[in-house]
Amino acid sequence: MKAKPKQSRYLTLVLILGLIAACTPPAEKTAEPTSIVEADPLPSWNDGPRKEAIISFVEDVTDSASPNFIPVADRIATFDNDGTLWSEQPIYFQFFFALDRVKALAAEHPEWKNKQPYKAVLENDMPTLMQQGEHGLLEIVMSTHAGNTTDEFDSLVRSWIDTAQHPVKKRRYTELVFQPMLELLDFLRANDFKTFIVSGGGIEFMRPWVEGVYGIPKDQVVGSSIQTEYDYNNGKPIIKRLAKIDLIDDKEGKPIGINRYIGRKPVFAAGNSDGDLQMLRWTDANPLMSFQLYIHHTDSLREWAYDRDSHIGKFDIGLDEAIEKGWTVIDMQTDWKIIYPFEKNQ
Amino acid sequence: MKAKPKQSRYLTLVLILGLIAACTPPAEKTAEPTSIVEADPLPSWNDGPRKEAIISFVEDVTDSASPNFIPVADRIATFDNDGTLWSEQPIYFQFFFALDRVKALAAEHPEWKNKQPYKAVLENDMPTLMQQGEHGLLEIVMSTHAGNTTDEFDSLVRSWIDTAQHPVKKRRYTELVFQPMLELLDFLRANDFKTFIVSGGGIEFMRPWVEGVYGIPKDQVVGSSIQTEYDYNNGKPIIKRLAKIDLIDDKEGKPIGINRYIGRKPVFAAGNSDGDLQMLRWTDANPLMSFQLYIHHTDSLREWAYDRDSHIGKFDIGLDEAIEKGWTVIDMQTDWKIIYPFEKNQ
Repeated sequence: MKAKPKQSRYLTLVLILGLIAACTPPAEKTAEPTSIVEADPLPSWNDGPRKEAIISFVEDVTDSASPNFIPVADRIATFDNDGTLWSEQPIYFQFFFALDRVKALAAEHPEWKNKQPYKAVLENDMPTLMQQGEHGLLEIVMSTHAGNTTDEFDSLVRSWIDTAQHPVKKRRYTELVFQPMLELLDFLRANDFKTFIVSGGGIEFMRPWVEGVYGIPKDQVVGSSIQTEYDYNNGKPIIKRLAKIDLIDDKEGKPIGINRYIGRKPVFAAGNSDGDLQMLRWTDANPLMSFQLYIHHTDSLREWAYDRDSHIGKFDIGLDEAIEKGWTVIDMQTDWKIIYPFEKNQ
Repeated sequence: MKAKPKQSRYLTLVLILGLIAACTPPAEKTAEPTSIVEADPLPSWNDGPRKEAIISFVEDVTDSASPNFIPVADRIATFDNDGTLWSEQPIYFQFFFALDRVKALAAEHPEWKNKQPYKAVLENDMPTLMQQGEHGLLEIVMSTHAGNTTDEFDSLVRSWIDTAQHPVKKRRYTELVFQPMLELLDFLRANDFKTFIVSGGGIEFMRPWVEGVYGIPKDQVVGSSIQTEYDYNNGKPIIKRLAKIDLIDDKEGKPIGINRYIGRKPVFAAGNSDGDLQMLRWTDANPLMSFQLYIHHTDSLREWAYDRDSHIGKFDIGLDEAIEKGWTVIDMQTDWKIIYPFEKNQ
């Protein structure tokens, strides 16, 4: 369970940095105006077998006369975040936060000008940054995420997420959430499902903003974490964030995190990569009726198209197993009328 | 944050075992029949300053016109379990589970007949068990709580909690929860507080039964934990419970656990010992209006009377600080009409 950085999907980030410059150009806005049907719980989803499968599942398991009825306490739905609830290209958005933190902290660390991996970040020298390897990446994450208090880190994230812009889309990152998934979250909650995030991203990176953006309370966020330390601090208690990994909530870490935080198997899980496969299998192992959703990024125009061996991680085992097991594989290009909320007004 | 067994309140358990024989005799049933007033949210609480303080706080912070108004998302209430929601004498109930597990497992471990600390448990030889020290206690806990899967452990706890009897009260352990606290939980939830357990007890020991008994979902339980490991197990995934401590959710571990699982400071906290003091201080540090409840065990007849340096732990720093800071100290004998739910029918 404990951190094995070499197993982490994040380590592939090192490979990513050189690709920022080469990434997909901004999506053109081609979405048709949506006609919202009053009774449609998923108005941004195109009609078809995937939308039908979701609605049928929810209607079935919430019908007390159905043999597949699921009691309310067991209606646990878990969602990966990066690539499932919001975009993850050209790299995981949290890594942009880390790079921005290096730049913000540079004045306090004059030595960084001549010290890798910081030098490469400060000079936007991506090829060199790529060569820093796992150790360099971990150093960037720890030096930008640890060494402060939980309250301080919360403020840093809030102010970044409120202002920072995605380098390609030129939008705030929280504008790059998937409108169809917001509707799915609402639809599940309207049917007494409890919705959770289960992400490889940092738990304290997500908590400051997911309540407002996804309607998911802080205590329903499972993510990667670092160790902490309580300090009474002369009557003004604080919790310090230490540069030691606690949980990497990816791959095997996802069922571990689900067990730690939620304490029961989900009946609904959504993901988009090999890092989500263990969560999907864990959900599939629930003796209750369950639903597995696998997002396939197929829309190079409105979002990004990638799968199999992408620069941000592996997707092939998950996709193959999803198809083989008959899980519901979403084709973003076909199944979603719009991708982002701002397209509603276009 | 990581386990330092020597800091744990559980270690005092070693001292306890010799005292079982000498513990308080069964409480006589002296509670007056309660007259349930329709509009009274806390019918088992006697009128007085403590009951008034609780009701005033809730009315104040849920009044949108009040300067002390607390938004719903911030209405986090955390409750210690042992000694706060149910009794904890003559020892923490979870330790009876561990002793019963040693006896149940003895047939598979013939060597235990001649090996300490098991020999002492099997022979009910409490003086010798007391001499086994910290190492012996930890060995009992690990050998009875680890080495199985989460599903198996869940079943073990369920079947024990459904059948085992308290040695003194001759009641099932879940009958020994505090009726006034059940009413308080309901009252807070009716006012949109989210109620959590934050206990030194094992998280997976509590989760199987707290939903039914306290109305607290499994994912709103914070407790001590051991490390786990995911195993795909040829397509039938399991999570194994390892004999390694993850979090001791006591003392400094309580704010750590609150931060890990809940992600925000509570506005309401209830405890009864020095092990709860850090949680109460953490809540008191909330810039929002907050409430601290400290249960003082004063009723030797209906429950148990103990404080200061008791055989099950320390209570004096917490009690002194509660009084000094003007926290609400409950006198069980004075403030509670009845202690246990079964007294309602007597």
